[in-house]
Order: sequence, then structure tokens, then C-alpha cells
Amino acid sequence: MSKAPGEFELIARLTARLRRRPGTILGPGDDCAILKPARGRELITIDSLVEGVHFRLDWGSAEALGARTLTVNLSDIAAMGGRPAACVVNLAIRPGLDARFFDRLYAGLGRAAAAAGVDIVGGNVTRAAALSITIALVGAAQGGVMLRGAARPGDHLYVTGTLGDAALGWRILDGKITARGAARRFLIDRFLNPVARVAAGMRLARIRPAPAAIDLSDGLWQDLGHLLERSGVGAEIDAAAIPLSAAYRAVAGDDRTLAIGGGEDYELLFALRAAKSSAELSRRLGVAVSRIGRIVRGRGARLIGADEAGTPALAGWDQLKERE
Amino acid sequence: MSKAPGEFELIARLTARLRRRPGTILGPGDDCAILKPARGRELITIDSLVEGVHFRLDWGSAEALGARTLTVNLSDIAAMGGRPAACVVNLAIRPGLDARFFDRLYAGLGRAAAAAGVDIVGGNVTRAAALSITIALVGAAQGGVMLRGAARPGDHLYVTGTLGDAALGWRILDGKITARGAARRFLIDRFLNPVARVAAGMRLARIRPAPAAIDLSDGLWQDLGHLLERSGVGAEIDAAAIPLSAAYRAVAGDDRTLAIGGGEDYELLFALRAAKSSAELSRRLGVAVSRIGRIVRGRGARLIGADEAGTPALAGWDQLKERE
Repeated sequence: MSKAPGEFELIARLTARLRRRPGTILGPGDDCAILKPARGRELITIDSLVEGVHFRLDWGSAEALGARTLTVNLSDIAAMGGRPAACVVNLAIRPGLDARFFDRLYAGLGRAAAAAGVDIVGGNVTRAAALSITIALVGAAQGGVMLRGAARPGDHLYVTGTLGDAALGWRILDGKITARGAARRFLIDRFLNPVARVAAGMRLARIRPAPAAIDLSDGLWQDLGHLLERSGVGAEIDAAAIPLSAAYRAVAGDDRTLAIGGGEDYELLFALRAAKSSAELSRRLGVAVSRIGRIVRGRGARLIGADEAGTPALAGWDQLKERE
Repeated sequence: MSKAPGEFELIARLTARLRRRPGTILGPGDDCAILKPARGRELITIDSLVEGVHFRLDWGSAEALGARTLTVNLSDIAAMGGRPAACVVNLAIRPGLDARFFDRLYAGLGRAAAAAGVDIVGGNVTRAAALSITIALVGAAQGGVMLRGAARPGDHLYVTGTLGDAALGWRILDGKITARGAARRFLIDRFLNPVARVAAGMRLARIRPAPAAIDLSDGLWQDLGHLLERSGVGAEIDAAAIPLSAAYRAVAGDDRTLAIGGGEDYELLFALRAAKSSAELSRRLGVAVSRIGRIVRGRGARLIGADEAGTPALAGWDQLKERE
């Protein structure tokens, strides 16, 4: 095993193969990075992945971990309809990880950043008991901004993609659920290599009036709850309409518990004033879209047509609660 | 002991008593915060304090810890001459800390932010094995920007304040050095309650040509090394000119080791093309300034007039190295 890298070596590695956007005036190496002011309103978010809480190193590659940390942040920008621009990375490192590990972590992070048009403009490295990666990401909202609080009674509710795959994949990795073959690989991949719906979010934000939206990081039920609370409305969800992948069905059958309560999907949930067909929206956004219910007066969400097996854990999925 | 708070309760606490700048369009509660574009160039930095690495909870108050985490970031903005504007906070929490602790942490952080004109616009909370607080801070540079790479041979080198106090305070708290009375209190306070030189940095950045500057987080010798390396120059430092507090002298006598190699002071080191007296600069910047040497051709720093006791640890002070 090669020697563990020091702080400055790590920062140098992190920033070695950087691509520069025109908006980046000064990248890493000084006390701060310097950016041109955002065109339009600026969006900012922060998120973190912690070893033993959000990932285990033996579950996937270092490259995937680096990419996933950025995806978690990209998804927040996607949920507002913004274009991601630049990020700063705080890396807390523990003993036992060698330079090769960090090279691979940064390679994955760097590729994900390049693919998303994001510059890594700065970083900080500190020691810690467990590995964690914290990214703060800025972006710009040039047209409309999608807010959690914009849903109104009568709006139609949609989600992108399929739900519950990542939660199933996590449980497969954790040994709590057994699966084999292609379904196993698909579900684990959905957990380890989630995709942020950035392009779909930007296209969604062009619709008028601007949709209400949130990304599904904590699970449909919990994130829907945030959207409803901020909007001061309720919702009715058609359990049968919640989109499930073939792999999900192969492993969990009709049990929608994880599709409703499981997190880490990074799909978008959004509410539109005027009904559009799922097919039209899928074409427009470039990703599968399913209509799952509607916004109603009142408070809270009601699940319509759920049999016993499909009754959700109402608190949704929360890593803080799950493991305490 | 009261119950440990959940994630959403914590975020609500963090954001309960927020002051809003005109530049903040949307604060916490959505996927991202929304800011007006920076006026001038935007600065961005990230830094983190980790329990057991940068602090111990029995060393100081939760309020001071919250404030210090922001100060560490403010100091990076100060070193560029910028005006801090808004921050996002990632909090990694461990079991055993109650709601009252987080109330106090956030009270300290909130007061420090208000005093610095900074809005706390977003946050994230995660579980972890140790408490850590990571802040990403954005600001604006309206006039000149001070860079590490701007020093030229012939420039005069200055520092604000006194050096080594925080490093001594840390060692007193850690039981490695003994001190009593007012000196002990002063040195510990310099470690627990550092001040970022934000106003001084903004005034410095108005000087033409713009000074080279860096903040002293890792210690004079190490941070000077960064400035020299980025500028492609060397330096001669007059050991006797390094400013020491009366408390430092009372505890360490003439031993300048920690004033040269010890970190956590958050003073500014800067290089000016035209010599100005320390008295004139002190008046202009509103903080004590000492001239400690000059920039020369070549590489590396040379300490002039150091006796044996004052010979610095050349690598400076690095928390990664110190404890490994």
C-alpha cells in the first residue's frame, strides 16, 4: 500500500486535472476561489456523504463514490431548475486510505463534474475518524425557479424515473434483502451511481407557471411532505401509479414500501398547474415521467388504493432515524 | 439531558433567528438557497472543524465553537480583501449531544454571522462518529483582490496582530504547556475566540498595487511558504520583528517557535510594494500591524537573527502531521 498522502498533496491531486469554465476566474490554490457573478439568480446548496452512514467502501468503487457525492448536490440544483456551475469540496480523511484511493475518488468526482459542466474551484482537507466528503455547489437560475412552496390545489403530481430502486439496492448491499442476476445489478447500480435530473429540471423550470418541485433524496413520502408543508396543501397519491422498475418488481413484487418510503433515488417530484400527459412530459424532459396524483386542499398526503403490503412507513426514510 | 434532536428539528433551530441581507432572495427550507448575483467578483471558500482534531467540547463553550467555525471561513475571505455575504452549513452530529447544545452552537454561529454581515442561507445535517461543522462561505470582491501570488522581490512583509498566541492557548488546553492567571486566559481566548481580520482585509485591498496576502491558519512559516511558492519568490524574516503578545512572552519567553510555526491565529500576512510604517498601516487598517521582513529573489524563507531557541519547525504547524 502506498503512503497516505498529506493535505497539500491531496489538494494538488484534487485539482490536477481541472477543466475551466469561463465563469471561473481563479481556481484552487489561494484562500478563496474567484467566480464571475452568476448570470441570473445564484443557487447554493451543501451536502455530505459519510462513511458508515451513507456508504461503505467495500460496496462500490472510489470513482463511483466521488461521482455520487457530486450527484447528491447536483440533484438539489436540478430540483430548482438551475444550471450547476462550480463547487468546493471538503474532504475529511481517516487513516488507512492510500494515495491511489484518493486518485480514484477524485477521478470519479472530476469526471462527474466535467459531465455536469461544473468546475471544482476549491477544497479543504482535514483529518477525521471516518471518511466524509462534503460539497458546496453553486449554480444559476436563468429563467424560472422551481420552489417547494409553489404547489396549489388542483395541481397534478409527477415523478421522473422509477422509485425505490436505490433503497432496494442499498438493502441488497447491506445484506438485508436478497436478489440475484440482472435485477440485483440494476438495483445496486441505482444506489451506487444515481443520476441527477439536471437537464430535466432546467426544461421543467421553463414551464409557466413554474412547477413546484423537490428532489427525492429522503423518499417520496418524506419529500412530498416537505413540498406539501411549504405549499400549505395536501395530496392524494395513486399507489398503483407510482413507477416501479422491472427489477424492483422482480425483487419486491407489489410491495411499494420502499418505492414510497425509501430514499436515495434523486428523481424529481413536481406539481404542474395544467395537466400534461406522462408521454408528452417524458418527451419534453428527456426522461420517463409518471403522473402519480394531485394536490388537494388541506394537509398531509393520502395514499389511494394501497393494499396492506403497500402501506408506506409514513415518516419516510431518514438515515438519522433508521440507525439511531 | 434532553432528547437528541432530529435532522429537521436541527435545521429549524439553525435557521430560526436569521437576519436577511438584501442579497438573500430565499433562505433555508428549499433544495437550494437563492442569492442575488455577487456585486463584483464572487469569492467562495470551504472549511471544517472536526471534534478531536480541531477542538474538544470540554475546552470551550458551544457558542464559541459555532462562532469559531465561521471565523475560520471569514478569515479566507479577509485574506482576499472581500466582503463576506452568505454561508451554508453542514453539520455532522454524533450521539450524546442534546438539543440545548445545538441551540448554543447555533446561537454562537448566528451571532458571529450577524456581526460579519453574513446570512446563513442553508444547511444540511447528517449523522457521524464525531461532531464536525463544515461551512462554505461566499462573498464579494468589489475593488482589488489580494492574491498569494502577487508578491515581488523588494516588497515589504507585514503581519496583523500578534503570532503564536492561539498555538500556545491550544497547548495550554491540551495540558502540554502550563500557564496561569491573565496570560493563560488571554492565550486560551485567542485560541477559542479568534477574530477574522475582515475589515482590515477590505482596507488593505484598496492599496495599489494590490498587496499579496494570505491568512495565518497553519502558522507563519507554512503560510508564508504558500505565498512565496505562488509568487515564485523568497523572503527574509527578521525573527526579532515577529510580534509577540505580553502573554506569549510571559509563558514562552523569547522562544519564538510557536509564533513562527504555530497555527490558528487567523491574522493576515501581506506584502506591500511601497514601504509604509507599521504605525501608518495600523491606523489605516484599524489593527496593530508589524513589519517583519521583505521579499527577495530566489526560493524559500530565511530567518534572520534567530537564536537556537527561536529556530522554527520549518514545516510549520499542520494538524494532519502533528497528530498522525
